[in-house]
Amino acid sequence: MPKILLFGAGGVGSIYTYVLTQGGASVTAVCRSNYETVKKDGFTINSAIWGEGIQVKPEVVRTPEEARGTEWDYVISCSKAMPGSSPSTPDIIKPAISPRTAIVLCQNGIHIEDEFAKAFPNNAIISGAVYLPVTQTSPGFVTHGYIERLEIGTYPADAVKAHKDSVQTFADIFTAGKGTAHVFDDVQPRRWNKLITNASWNPLCALSRSKDIHLLNSTPSSKKMIYGIMLEVVKIAQACGYTDIIAKHADAQMERVVVQIPDRGIYPSMVGDALNLRPMEVEAIVGNTVRIAMEKGVEVPLLELTYTLIKALDESNRKRRDEKA
Amino acid sequence: MPKILLFGAGGVGSIYTYVLTQGGASVTAVCRSNYETVKKDGFTINSAIWGEGIQVKPEVVRTPEEARGTEWDYVISCSKAMPGSSPSTPDIIKPAISPRTAIVLCQNGIHIEDEFAKAFPNNAIISGAVYLPVTQTSPGFVTHGYIERLEIGTYPADAVKAHKDSVQTFADIFTAGKGTAHVFDDVQPRRWNKLITNASWNPLCALSRSKDIHLLNSTPSSKKMIYGIMLEVVKIAQACGYTDIIAKHADAQMERVVVQIPDRGIYPSMVGDALNLRPMEVEAIVGNTVRIAMEKGVEVPLLELTYTLIKALDESNRKRRDEKA
Repeated sequence: MPKILLFGAGGVGSIYTYVLTQGGASVTAVCRSNYETVKKDGFTINSAIWGEGIQVKPEVVRTPEEARGTEWDYVISCSKAMPGSSPSTPDIIKPAISPRTAIVLCQNGIHIEDEFAKAFPNNAIISGAVYLPVTQTSPGFVTHGYIERLEIGTYPADAVKAHKDSVQTFADIFTAGKGTAHVFDDVQPRRWNKLITNASWNPLCALSRSKDIHLLNSTPSSKKMIYGIMLEVVKIAQACGYTDIIAKHADAQMERVVVQIPDRGIYPSMVGDALNLRPMEVEAIVGNTVRIAMEKGVEVPLLELTYTLIKALDESNRKRRDEKA
Repeated sequence: MPKILLFGAGGVGSIYTYVLTQGGASVTAVCRSNYETVKKDGFTINSAIWGEGIQVKPEVVRTPEEARGTEWDYVISCSKAMPGSSPSTPDIIKPAISPRTAIVLCQNGIHIEDEFAKAFPNNAIISGAVYLPVTQTSPGFVTHGYIERLEIGTYPADAVKAHKDSVQTFADIFTAGKGTAHVFDDVQPRRWNKLITNASWNPLCALSRSKDIHLLNSTPSSKKMIYGIMLEVVKIAQACGYTDIIAKHADAQMERVVVQIPDRGIYPSMVGDALNLRPMEVEAIVGNTVRIAMEKGVEVPLLELTYTLIKALDESNRKRRDEKA
């Protein structure tokens, strides 16, 4: 029975705990704010796909340090991607990493694998693009919508066979647990494809404190602007050699919102962070993207302005959070 | 003794009440939230230029309707510029306008004069760019910094001589009251010059909820982005034929902030509106600017993105304000 430690046991983490447990793994969740509830009652999940009132009760620890001494087959990070933060996520999970542990990153953003690959140069690094609309409405209680899909592959793409095998084994557990995992020989194009949505809707809605549909309808230029940022992401991906990432992918992302009725719409996850003065995934989603563009000599004025604004907002939110504390 | 009705008796309005009263005019202020205080005790002004504890006690009314029947020489609007709002400011001040009344607009933004000129085609319209750092800290109590300058001229620039004379008379009263009024044959270039600052710092700081210096330091791209928006404003001004507006004016506006020490900085006025869910001068400062660019065929991607975001923020703030009420 594979032993899995799951770090970041929020919305995504709870669903993955459920799927992997169903798939036959022994899952231990690192819980922070929801420790007491999950320790006592596990997670309660209402899922549009799998049904209401699903219960799953993993082993629970408070920190990766508490999980030291077990030979974990997989350590999965479902926490927010905060490259450059201190302490780093690699530092935090280090006590739980043994030579045989594969590290699975179920996180948003681009080039977020670098600091894990540097910290654990001999371990398998598995990178995943997560499609999973889910919210932890109160500690341990989770609501999940209609989409569930995980796209994974090794980082880097040309990893050794043992690491490739490790990806396939993980996908098999996931699939056995009623999840949808697709293995890619090179998962980076999949991350770029997801970034088209994340680097546009997320920061723009957070800055304007708006639902996607309200941002889209705010001015005659809105669609052109949002789409313009998507196309900048496409240009960067192409400059990185991912020529399969084309404008059509942006079209699909626009269409998803355009068809919504005006009084509905959704708040992308970064808006909740912005409204509640929580740290946002600014560097993973926007900062790294802009830096890659600079390195490749790609002009991305709209992304650059977005980065300036969302970075300043993240910092001013931090100041307000500190003042409240 | 010229009779002046002042609409929008907040920070700027209180200072102008003081200056014009000192200059020999009879000033009546239209007061809303500060009516009781100003009716009883007038305004109390602490000014870095003129001194502490200055008192000025104008006549006070609650609405322009209350001021009907008097032949006002000047009706000055110091309220926020909200072109397109309903009821419009022209509608609101209409009861106080007689054929002899000159209408003075001491307001931010560009092309804000249009709806006044349409509503009062035979009256003198006087347009002013205001430089006056001032805050009403509580109803009737005002703090004013080191700068005081009013640049005025007729709208349109080729007005009849009687209207030109009306500008000069107003400037003379202002100057007699220790104010600094400069009359321009065409005041529009002066409005564009002020817009360089207003269309950049104001919305960008409001979106990021930041002080100017913190926005400037947020990313390696920040200066380029802020300056980029300033240059877009310069390009539009030039396309409108105001070829005296050049990049040098943007340089001066950047320098003013660059020299600030990092833990200081200021919140441009739009930030206060954003943080307190008050309406922002989005159309006057950004929307009209973008529309003029479109008409002239000038590409302004950074301003367009700024407009999309600040317009959506203004609308989401309105929704939050309505929910609170």
